[in-house]
Amino acid sequence: MKERRTRIDAVMEAVRTRIAARAYPPGARLPSVRAQAKTLGFSVSTVVEAYERLVAEGVITPRQGSGFYVAGPIAPLALAEIGPRLDRQVDPLWISRQALEAEPDGPKPGCGWLPPSWMYEAGMRRALRAVARADSAMLADYATPRGLPALRQVLARRMAAAKVEATPEQIMLTDSGTQAIDLICRFLLEPGDTVLVDDPCYFNFHALLRAHRVNAVGVPFTPNGPDVAAFAAALRDHSPRLYITNSGIHNPTGATLSPATAHRLLSLADDSDLVIVEDDIFADFETNPAPRLAAFDGLRRVIQVGSFSKTVSAALRCGYIAARADWIDSLIDLKLATGFGGSQLASSVLLAALTDSGYRKHMETVRTRLAGAMLRTVDRLAALGITPWIVPQAGMFLWCRLPAGIDAADLARACLRDGLVLAPGNAFSQSHSAGGFLRFNVAQSEDGRGYDILARALAGCGN
Amino acid sequence: MKERRTRIDAVMEAVRTRIAARAYPPGARLPSVRAQAKTLGFSVSTVVEAYERLVAEGVITPRQGSGFYVAGPIAPLALAEIGPRLDRQVDPLWISRQALEAEPDGPKPGCGWLPPSWMYEAGMRRALRAVARADSAMLADYATPRGLPALRQVLARRMAAAKVEATPEQIMLTDSGTQAIDLICRFLLEPGDTVLVDDPCYFNFHALLRAHRVNAVGVPFTPNGPDVAAFAAALRDHSPRLYITNSGIHNPTGATLSPATAHRLLSLADDSDLVIVEDDIFADFETNPAPRLAAFDGLRRVIQVGSFSKTVSAALRCGYIAARADWIDSLIDLKLATGFGGSQLASSVLLAALTDSGYRKHMETVRTRLAGAMLRTVDRLAALGITPWIVPQAGMFLWCRLPAGIDAADLARACLRDGLVLAPGNAFSQSHSAGGFLRFNVAQSEDGRGYDILARALAGCGN
Repeated sequence: MKERRTRIDAVMEAVRTRIAARAYPPGARLPSVRAQAKTLGFSVSTVVEAYERLVAEGVITPRQGSGFYVAGPIAPLALAEIGPRLDRQVDPLWISRQALEAEPDGPKPGCGWLPPSWMYEAGMRRALRAVARADSAMLADYATPRGLPALRQVLARRMAAAKVEATPEQIMLTDSGTQAIDLICRFLLEPGDTVLVDDPCYFNFHALLRAHRVNAVGVPFTPNGPDVAAFAAALRDHSPRLYITNSGIHNPTGATLSPATAHRLLSLADDSDLVIVEDDIFADFETNPAPRLAAFDGLRRVIQVGSFSKTVSAALRCGYIAARADWIDSLIDLKLATGFGGSQLASSVLLAALTDSGYRKHMETVRTRLAGAMLRTVDRLAALGITPWIVPQAGMFLWCRLPAGIDAADLARACLRDGLVLAPGNAFSQSHSAGGFLRFNVAQSEDGRGYDILARALAGCGN
Repeated sequence: MKERRTRIDAVMEAVRTRIAARAYPPGARLPSVRAQAKTLGFSVSTVVEAYERLVAEGVITPRQGSGFYVAGPIAPLALAEIGPRLDRQVDPLWISRQALEAEPDGPKPGCGWLPPSWMYEAGMRRALRAVARADSAMLADYATPRGLPALRQVLARRMAAAKVEATPEQIMLTDSGTQAIDLICRFLLEPGDTVLVDDPCYFNFHALLRAHRVNAVGVPFTPNGPDVAAFAAALRDHSPRLYITNSGIHNPTGATLSPATAHRLLSLADDSDLVIVEDDIFADFETNPAPRLAAFDGLRRVIQVGSFSKTVSAALRCGYIAARADWIDSLIDLKLATGFGGSQLASSVLLAALTDSGYRKHMETVRTRLAGAMLRTVDRLAALGITPWIVPQAGMFLWCRLPAGIDAADLARACLRDGLVLAPGNAFSQSHSAGGFLRFNVAQSEDGRGYDILARALAGCGN
């Protein structure tokens, strides 16, 4: 009996090893019981028993009449499996998926964008009608490699206003701000490289960096930007290749970079040959523009990226990269190889929307509405014992500390049962030190139902 | 004097080594002359001379008043630098960039798409006007993780008509057919893996695979599909993870897969646990649909991808992946991590265009026009001694053999000087065995000017 068990274990081990080595890739059919028995030199009954046990373990799955298959979840780049295992419910991707799949009309203070009714709807309708009348090449052709020249000119002028000098040749359009950062990672990183991020930072940076199989190191964030001493120590200890940040309005904290911090970061970057990606997606929400690393540095080692998904429309995928001309040239090759080209349609619609005289007025209205929502949200959360880390000057995010003893992930799970999508702090924190925080989107926090659910869940979690 | 030269060489070597090891990354500022002298223990004048020589070599560049910088072109993932060095003018990316940057009205028989006037312009205008009236969430929100449900239903019905069984849940929308393949590569491949491609194949597959740092192995292509014996040998010799192909109308040859070849390929794939990506982008050009690997296999180990860039509009970026449900789940995570989401706008416009009653009629017209253009192009090329490898049943491509002794890359270079963009054979050939071939797009070969330029260049190259 013991010997038989050893033989079964040997078959199981052989199969597991091959799955781990991808000799049997995810979803692949395993050799038939008969073939496996022959290959490994065991009896058919031994292999049958080994396969059955592997099925019980979930390593393989049987399919009616067609044998056994390697189970799916161990696919090689299943992001949830890479790096330290996370609780799926505070996993960066989980928040994205919950927010993207939530009921359109339900309260979702955890999501990272404005409700549709806050977006530039009238401008989008005008832009679509204008593009419906565009010439046939605009409607039918691929974009040029850099993307629509007129839109790149508009972007260069916007940057100039923010003291970032970039020619239209130094700008490449992308399908989104995220794709912009993804292409830069492809360009500059190799698996195993180290990248600095703010702790906390936009949670999708974690997911993106995991997809590149690089190590993220978090630098504690202060109300003026990253902690400079910790930044210097991280440079010394980890020799990172890249630092990714938002310098305008920081996600999730809403903080803004101070000029002194910007200057010191750039000096440190110069000394360490660090490349910095500055994600400028929240620029149009600012009332008093913060300094831009790209402005101080002159696009030498700073790469600026942005998009209009938060202001014009998230339905319209169009972002950009502004960088050194020679880097843009290599990034174009990567963009063509991996996506063939950008969207002429998206860039035409965006151009029409941005150059529409209503956009400026629209954003003024949004800023005023957000300022009001910010104050109301602070008050309503205070009533629940939830306090902001800082009250941001602008933007949609409020980074809040929960009452002592409440775990944000527990709270998020409890609220999700009632349909309320929250954004628990550790999804934003590389060090997992933000278990007592939540990020609130003030534009998505005006619905009283959300506070009722939150209050009940807090009472439940506090027990 | 000799000793000084040795010292200068030592400094140059030290700098080169650090650049190669990326201790000094591309674009980084080098240590000052003084600092370098101190670090390396040489005199300032030795370092000055070494830096000047490295400038002369193009390894570093001086910048007025701010020292020396690592030159740009050696950036880590400059695709043109990866793998065997190619002649830039037969480089896959070169053809894309030439074709994308060519004069809109100039003849470009080398490009891979229809002229704008052949595309579904009226349908696009109607679709844009319809979407301009859509509800505000459609105009402003991110798409759901899989993408617009109604479009996925239409795609599932189209696939069912081609005997490919896929539920809408098994379909994920992407920003393009290329992005679809890119995501699959991210999901299934690791650097150093091997991928089979047809030889010749769509040239961008080469660029895409280089971006993933994997090895492409070409399998000779026959008028019925890949050579089955060579395919079996490649499986045995290289243990590839993936095979990427077009089974409908093959790019660049226009050939179609025979049922016998399809069956044998799938049997071999089953035996070797090979995953197959079937790019179905030319489906709507077919008059007599070829067998689909995805139909035979039932989306078990075959993944089907496609887009409508060749038929509806290339300005509209929208593609799809149909695969096993558990693979789709991991692909969604990757899509969110690297691009955040697809375009609600692009998918809405595509849905409106595809479900417009005019699309079917439009494609009938396109197929008829292509059939005429195919015959005319064959005749006009015959007059120049250029002969088709096969005359395809449908589609826009004609894979042609040049007169003996003519090199396609030389010819392409000569024609480009006169503004004519050609697609030389070796850009499509992993083995570089297609130096005597050109791919013609018959829809882009109706302009007499192109033949005049070609005739002159042929005469010149034949000397």
